[in-house]
Amino acid sequence: MALDDALARLLASVQPLSQTLAVHESVSLFEADGRVLAEEVVSALHVPPHDNSSMDGYAVCSADLAQATAHQPVRLNVSQRIAAGHAPQPLAAGTAARIFTGAPMPAGADAVVMQEEVVVADDAEGQTWATFAQPVPEGTWVRRAGEDVTRGATVLQPGQRLGPAELGLAASLGRDRLQVCRRPHVALLSTGDELVMPGTVPPEAMPPGAIYNSNRYFLRVLLQRIGCTVTDLGLVPDQRAATVAALQQAAEGHDLILTSGGVSVGEEDHIKPAVQQLGALDLWQIAMKPGKPFAHGHVRRADGGAAHFIGLPGNPVSSFVTFLLLVRPFLLRLQGAAEVGYPTQQLPAHFSLPRADKRREFLRVRRNAAGGLDLFGNQSSGVLTSASWADGLVDHPAGHTIAHGDTLRFIALADLLH
Amino acid sequence: MALDDALARLLASVQPLSQTLAVHESVSLFEADGRVLAEEVVSALHVPPHDNSSMDGYAVCSADLAQATAHQPVRLNVSQRIAAGHAPQPLAAGTAARIFTGAPMPAGADAVVMQEEVVVADDAEGQTWATFAQPVPEGTWVRRAGEDVTRGATVLQPGQRLGPAELGLAASLGRDRLQVCRRPHVALLSTGDELVMPGTVPPEAMPPGAIYNSNRYFLRVLLQRIGCTVTDLGLVPDQRAATVAALQQAAEGHDLILTSGGVSVGEEDHIKPAVQQLGALDLWQIAMKPGKPFAHGHVRRADGGAAHFIGLPGNPVSSFVTFLLLVRPFLLRLQGAAEVGYPTQQLPAHFSLPRADKRREFLRVRRNAAGGLDLFGNQSSGVLTSASWADGLVDHPAGHTIAHGDTLRFIALADLLH
Repeated sequence: MALDDALARLLASVQPLSQTLAVHESVSLFEADGRVLAEEVVSALHVPPHDNSSMDGYAVCSADLAQATAHQPVRLNVSQRIAAGHAPQPLAAGTAARIFTGAPMPAGADAVVMQEEVVVADDAEGQTWATFAQPVPEGTWVRRAGEDVTRGATVLQPGQRLGPAELGLAASLGRDRLQVCRRPHVALLSTGDELVMPGTVPPEAMPPGAIYNSNRYFLRVLLQRIGCTVTDLGLVPDQRAATVAALQQAAEGHDLILTSGGVSVGEEDHIKPAVQQLGALDLWQIAMKPGKPFAHGHVRRADGGAAHFIGLPGNPVSSFVTFLLLVRPFLLRLQGAAEVGYPTQQLPAHFSLPRADKRREFLRVRRNAAGGLDLFGNQSSGVLTSASWADGLVDHPAGHTIAHGDTLRFIALADLLH
Repeated sequence: MALDDALARLLASVQPLSQTLAVHESVSLFEADGRVLAEEVVSALHVPPHDNSSMDGYAVCSADLAQATAHQPVRLNVSQRIAAGHAPQPLAAGTAARIFTGAPMPAGADAVVMQEEVVVADDAEGQTWATFAQPVPEGTWVRRAGEDVTRGATVLQPGQRLGPAELGLAASLGRDRLQVCRRPHVALLSTGDELVMPGTVPPEAMPPGAIYNSNRYFLRVLLQRIGCTVTDLGLVPDQRAATVAALQQAAEGHDLILTSGGVSVGEEDHIKPAVQQLGALDLWQIAMKPGKPFAHGHVRRADGGAAHFIGLPGNPVSSFVTFLLLVRPFLLRLQGAAEVGYPTQQLPAHFSLPRADKRREFLRVRRNAAGGLDLFGNQSSGVLTSASWADGLVDHPAGHTIAHGDTLRFIALADLLH
């Protein structure tokens, strides 16, 4: 199966949580980072709310300065002082108002002269006079009401993921809470008798054949980064009954059961028959490297519902890459996200790959200072050194070699890790 | 002051927390996402620990199959069965071992034949025989011990930021805890009488001149995303005594006091004299747009130490951009991060900008489907619509216009928001 077909089938199986009942929740902006918006945010006000000054200076009626020159400056009485956050009086005819950045323009004023261009002096009666040596065009240093956001304008759409800018924008419209899709609940299982949890056995005491479980750690973090709550159900022994029991437990209260390992065709794998007994499972051999074995199905719950089931390959890099390319878009779509893809860019290879692979490859690469891509020497899927070293993946079509200077399709990891 | 000079001065003022005493802490991998590593992680084992199979199949001595052909296949007794996580017996001469992906190779075997290429049958005595129709090169489907990581190799360096791949890598070496730099403690203050907290006053009841405080919301999230703990001290009234009191309180127990607003030259700003009274302050006019007013200094603590002080401009976009370009690297360096920069790329303008600015500009742009950059129409610094719409900034030199097709320096926001 081609990766693109696998992704399309996976996304087609998703009923976004936001389209089912009672799955929105209202959260404080402080809790909303990374969540998917479930409402249209419409501005109830103009931003800025009133014409205001974008400089510290003097608000004037520009017509009053029309004749001002260095030789014949215009002198205006400073009739009021307007600080940000304070309401002005209408500007008395033939006067200027001291004004500060962000302060509302007084009625009758249509321009601001910055303070560096004004000579100010007090007279014997304690009156303050501002002297202007040139005209000022109407509108100078004035931000118009509604210039940035008009009342009634839609500023955020359902399906947008919320980040710092969106939260700041919502706040600037007076919102302190937003309707978002509830977090997907994911049950995380690892399978494989060879797996040992780090911290339980020191390296020198590892039994033959044993390896440390690393998938649990990065999968949990990846799930959290895209907004999921994770129930870590730990390691399931390679036994049919234990696998069935773990899956039944995992289906309750979770939207997705995610496993790694146990989905290849080997007869030691108990995941496949267990999921088939409790629901349905498709095993996909995806034409990608790293990757390939990938399982998708569901596990029925006691209440008649079902949890999605996704089984990732056991090799860490395969698990990491298939998560980013398949599970991440699945979970974003489950949250109702409109955009589940990622940007790509064309960059030159500063390496060669003389051997073509029959599968589409996702090579671990890093941008170098010369604007090209370096390849990590060991593209083994057994350990995450390549993924840690890399800052991106090259999406390389099947059956092609790479020569130095070839243009490659680069995906930045930064765009996939959140 | 040029932006690059401002950044250099800011970074020069940082004594990384990791170089002072008692600021490392040991955290569980589950708590380590986004933190900066404060130790060298050296592998205590080979990865993989033993030669092992990378396929489900049959482990053999390749010499035994040297003469195998379709017409004269070689038949070997299946003398053992090796699942992942189980220790093998040495391979009896002239036999094969059933083996599964990840299982250790038995002594005496030097290759694996994948199961799809083997015909297997049981005889009347219950013995299992595997039939091979071709030779297998030595090493086929065998992952060598130490192929991915050699015992004693340094896999992670102090100063690296930890993400999913690094955490998975550390776990694969048996680590469940890591030494990281402690989180910077940041006190966040907003200043400006015009500011109203969202949720306290509805839009229709906003007094004249009032605007909602949005900086607090995105600054808090940005700080958290780069590993800081944030004490939100809310809004400080535009009064000298209140400002002094707030700063004194903020200096205790915090590494950095971060404010927005109140650092322009206007006489309504009380931050400058208050910080100068309690420590020292430089006001920088940075030649950047948005941005420009930026303050850096320190506030003394009762114990003789001092907290860093950074004052950002009050306009939301100015505050957002100066945070990303100046405060983010400052806080990463404070945590001992080796890399505080970001990648850039050259992309073509699909817009024009006929008016050159005398300041270096950071334009809010978005990559389009055609591989070019679109410009957000309203580059005002008053509201975050541009930053929400954008997926990156163009770093545009002072004094230059932009014509359609010009190559621009693009910075992806995804690289700055974590």
